Amino acid sequence: MPDSLTPTPSVTTGPLPASRKVHIPGKLHPEIRVPLREIAVHPSAGEPPVAVYDSSGPYTDPAAVIDIARGLPRARAAWIEARGDTEAVAGRDVRPEDNGFATGERLTPAFPIRNAPRRAKGGAAVTQLAYARAGIITPEMEYAAIRENMGRERAAAEARDGEDFGASIPDFVTPEFVRDEIARGRAIIPANINHPELEPMVIGRNFLVKINANIGNSAVTSSMAEEVEKMVWSIRWGADTVMDLSTGRNIHNIRDWIIRNAPIPIGTVPLYQALEKVGGIAPDLTWEVYRDTLIEQAEQGVDYFTIHAGVRLAHVPLTVGRTTGIVSRGGSIMASWCLHHHRESFLYEHFEEICDICRAYDVSFSLGDGLRPGSIADANDAAQFAELETLGELTKIAWAKDCQVMIEGPGHVPMHKIKANMDKQLKVCGEAPFYTLGPLTTDIAPGYDHITSGIGAAMIGWFGTAMLCYVTPKEHLGLPDRDDVKTGVITYKIAAHAADLAKGHPGAQVRDDALSRARFEFRWEDQFNLSLDPDTARSFHDETLPKEAHKTAHFCSMCGPKFCSMRISHDLRAEAQKEGMEAMARKYRDGGQLYMPVGGRE
Amino acid sequence: MPDSLTPTPSVTTGPLPASRKVHIPGKLHPEIRVPLREIAVHPSAGEPPVAVYDSSGPYTDPAAVIDIARGLPRARAAWIEARGDTEAVAGRDVRPEDNGFATGERLTPAFPIRNAPRRAKGGAAVTQLAYARAGIITPEMEYAAIRENMGRERAAAEARDGEDFGASIPDFVTPEFVRDEIARGRAIIPANINHPELEPMVIGRNFLVKINANIGNSAVTSSMAEEVEKMVWSIRWGADTVMDLSTGRNIHNIRDWIIRNAPIPIGTVPLYQALEKVGGIAPDLTWEVYRDTLIEQAEQGVDYFTIHAGVRLAHVPLTVGRTTGIVSRGGSIMASWCLHHHRESFLYEHFEEICDICRAYDVSFSLGDGLRPGSIADANDAAQFAELETLGELTKIAWAKDCQVMIEGPGHVPMHKIKANMDKQLKVCGEAPFYTLGPLTTDIAPGYDHITSGIGAAMIGWFGTAMLCYVTPKEHLGLPDRDDVKTGVITYKIAAHAADLAKGHPGAQVRDDALSRARFEFRWEDQFNLSLDPDTARSFHDETLPKEAHKTAHFCSMCGPKFCSMRISHDLRAEAQKEGMEAMARKYRDGGQLYMPVGGRE
Repeated sequence: MPDSLTPTPSVTTGPLPASRKVHIPGKLHPEIRVPLREIAVHPSAGEPPVAVYDSSGPYTDPAAVIDIARGLPRARAAWIEARGDTEAVAGRDVRPEDNGFATGERLTPAFPIRNAPRRAKGGAAVTQLAYARAGIITPEMEYAAIRENMGRERAAAEARDGEDFGASIPDFVTPEFVRDEIARGRAIIPANINHPELEPMVIGRNFLVKINANIGNSAVTSSMAEEVEKMVWSIRWGADTVMDLSTGRNIHNIRDWIIRNAPIPIGTVPLYQALEKVGGIAPDLTWEVYRDTLIEQAEQGVDYFTIHAGVRLAHVPLTVGRTTGIVSRGGSIMASWCLHHHRESFLYEHFEEICDICRAYDVSFSLGDGLRPGSIADANDAAQFAELETLGELTKIAWAKDCQVMIEGPGHVPMHKIKANMDKQLKVCGEAPFYTLGPLTTDIAPGYDHITSGIGAAMIGWFGTAMLCYVTPKEHLGLPDRDDVKTGVITYKIAAHAADLAKGHPGAQVRDDALSRARFEFRWEDQFNLSLDPDTARSFHDETLPKEAHKTAHFCSMCGPKFCSMRISHDLRAEAQKEGMEAMARKYRDGGQLYMPVGGRE
Repeated sequence: MPDSLTPTPSVTTGPLPASRKVHIPGKLHPEIRVPLREIAVHPSAGEPPVAVYDSSGPYTDPAAVIDIARGLPRARAAWIEARGDTEAVAGRDVRPEDNGFATGERLTPAFPIRNAPRRAKGGAAVTQLAYARAGIITPEMEYAAIRENMGRERAAAEARDGEDFGASIPDFVTPEFVRDEIARGRAIIPANINHPELEPMVIGRNFLVKINANIGNSAVTSSMAEEVEKMVWSIRWGADTVMDLSTGRNIHNIRDWIIRNAPIPIGTVPLYQALEKVGGIAPDLTWEVYRDTLIEQAEQGVDYFTIHAGVRLAHVPLTVGRTTGIVSRGGSIMASWCLHHHRESFLYEHFEEICDICRAYDVSFSLGDGLRPGSIADANDAAQFAELETLGELTKIAWAKDCQVMIEGPGHVPMHKIKANMDKQLKVCGEAPFYTLGPLTTDIAPGYDHITSGIGAAMIGWFGTAMLCYVTPKEHLGLPDRDDVKTGVITYKIAAHAADLAKGHPGAQVRDDALSRARFEFRWEDQFNLSLDPDTARSFHDETLPKEAHKTAHFCSMCGPKFCSMRISHDLRAEAQKEGMEAMARKYRDGGQLYMPVGGRE
């Protein structure tokens, strides 16, 4: 690419407003540098910067040199090599079918640099689960632990507030806690040994709730440049992982560009590419084609695979009476295969072999919910729960193979049926992390399904879901563009954060409190900068009060100066100091009656 | 206006796509004509039209002649006169201060038609509550009952699904049920006798969840024409009531234009206008100015008043330690007044006289939560709950005066503290309807507070809140424009509908099911038309697949034809019919093992 006539596509870079990227070194592993974003506030506040979790990678670091034709630095390579349990291999050659037989101008150029893939030596399990069980705290574990504390250096002193429904959220996340959670199967660090560009993160019920953004081209539209930018764009706004759901041509090459530039875990659905390889004819799928695709993608560095191995032949009839049948692509492909051949799913039958592949690269499982409900009418039905029980069974097999596992969940579920999903998942899947799509709480708002699902996502996140897969406004209608990606990400950051607050994650409320203080003190710039989307907050404010002076005004366009409740509150507070109201309030709270009504009722 | 040089402003009219307005006559009161919207589906579906609740008024009726300088037809006038307990009075003359002393070009012209206001004869209570207690089923009650059933003519035969947390939702809403709920104080029909243009509706925990949209000019911006259009626009998308929160000049005249053109209940905060009358100086407020404002607005036809009578002097000190003080404008004004004079609130002291005014016009109370929390940090604190207890006390007084009451609620509340609000409100306010603002479940997303609050609104609606006050994307940042109003309304329709589904309202799922069937059968046009916002759904679809032919395509841009799970599902279903899979599924569900795995694990 650097020598070709096509210029290297550019991506969005630069820090967010008032933000500075800082790096915290490890203690067990001093070589790790864990990123954090510090948002500065106005000196008048007399407050330290607010530290927030930062999944945006080097793109928001002004010190980083970004060239997507070179990819990100491969810091993890040394950690992986140091373990001594993997080796570089020749790897599988790229074949024409990997890119849908695209040639000439229709072929997306290969990523310019080819690194030899690595694989476990001699059948070893090189997974974070294997290390955790062996009592090893890896650099990845310490890295994830430091991230979770968001700059706090010790356990919070204050009493915690929240309802966690039986989770075990610690006051302070230690590397040992991360190790223990992984060893128990309650958390995963998706981190393929062939993805050394990764900044590790942990997914589990006792950690901050994460969000995933889906990208990917389809047969109808999109290109490599757009997809890389969508990835960068989605993590800029807070996506913790990204799934590449491409289904058209050039799948292999586009994925290479994405992974080489991705500081976050990348997930895929290998079945999509396998189907492309057999010309889109589901019954023509074979274990051999599928197996080859797994190796292809594992060598590229995919961090987690959605595997629809829970769609068994016997489940298919359960979907026949449904309002919306099978809405998962992977689920419908496998159901079609099973029914056509009238035999058990090859994914189910070969599941142990799939585990053997995944453990050699540390590809995590995201066990797919191929039978998730696609409508309120189908929520929590026999098909959905039959599959979930199979996923529980597969979880045990994967764990026996030292593979990391999370479980995918619905879908469309009305509010009163959400908690049953979480409870059943925890029970049948042994507390493996739950990773849900929404759920959408009503079917009647296409165009707004980020909102119908944001409601369900916040709730199921509170109940214990570890990662929320975003839904964009285009869901059910079309492919998301850049704006849709951002809207989806911000909506899901809201849902995840609302869940963190409700679960009582220590430190979660720090940002709310800082923003609310800024609001109360009319520090408009701080209010924008501390928000999830400073650009939008600022532009909305400017629409009605564009002048710079208004950024320091002690009122806004909503009420104008006369009606400003906040300003009146400040006057009250000033008066309070005069009158010693705090003392009076204490007496009132203690049951005293301070003020006798001058007249009227008692 | 018709003779002036200024053309009469226009508003948005015309039916929604594929929709027809139908009118259902009453049985007890054959003269009433209750509107309903029927959405037609494609003949290939073989399904009847879907009937949905219609709050949009004559504006969506192609048969109606709309001229906002004439106002809407006054159908209710005859019902009110027929009761014989009210009389036309001269009424209060408009005074210069009613419009903020605006003159000349700055004065919004008066509404061209002046109708003599009516008032109860000889101190009678002419409220729906008084009639309900007397065992009278008014036309308003029957009207509201018919609306609630959304075209169903009898109780649903199927079993109901949902969790209603102790509500008493009937299978079918009869006029007698509405009467009984009102008599118990569990529901209200806000319906001022001076608002005969009103299409009555009921607000209560055992009815469909309603939503309110706020409009209103401020000292900084907006005009009469814009506000009337915002009202029409908000009900087009489903707002059930509208609050006019104007605070600038011309409050009186703009309100007249709004009410004369409003088929939905109009609420106000009379304190805002009273404050304007005393030049914006809170301590200068007097009971006399406030009382005069109540009469002014009651004669105009305001259907419900927000009265912040729960902000008592003794509560003020409880707010001093808060992160965001008092964020309610009304609350801060009253707190300021109390503190300045160091005496009890005049609203609290004169509450019985306020009731005497309200009962003479049937203005419902919306008891304001002047001390609602403005941040996560302040949620559920002593100030908030002290006020709520006072509101419970005031509810009993209002009920003793035959006045209808609802109670306003928070605010900013994290998810785990929402239910406590609902439970406490039900307990201390004797099940009077709860009317909440959001609540916002986090503070960190200005620009997206329709979403932070939509999450809380859906949840509290499920728990029992009767009406949800919308929040727009501009909350905390600026005044909502037309687009923001629409986004706020649609978001809250989603929240209210999600709540209806979760509560198990009979009939609520009909629209979800119809839309999901359309989705499964690739009836794209039906999918758009059945959605809350057909225009947006259609335009999103057209962005990627603009051609008309694609509206009948059996796939979409998301997956393309090869990967379409829905299409594959159809193929499965066809195969199923061949193989009799439904029978097999039954056996599977009964515990049978139909398919033995060909190989692999059991």
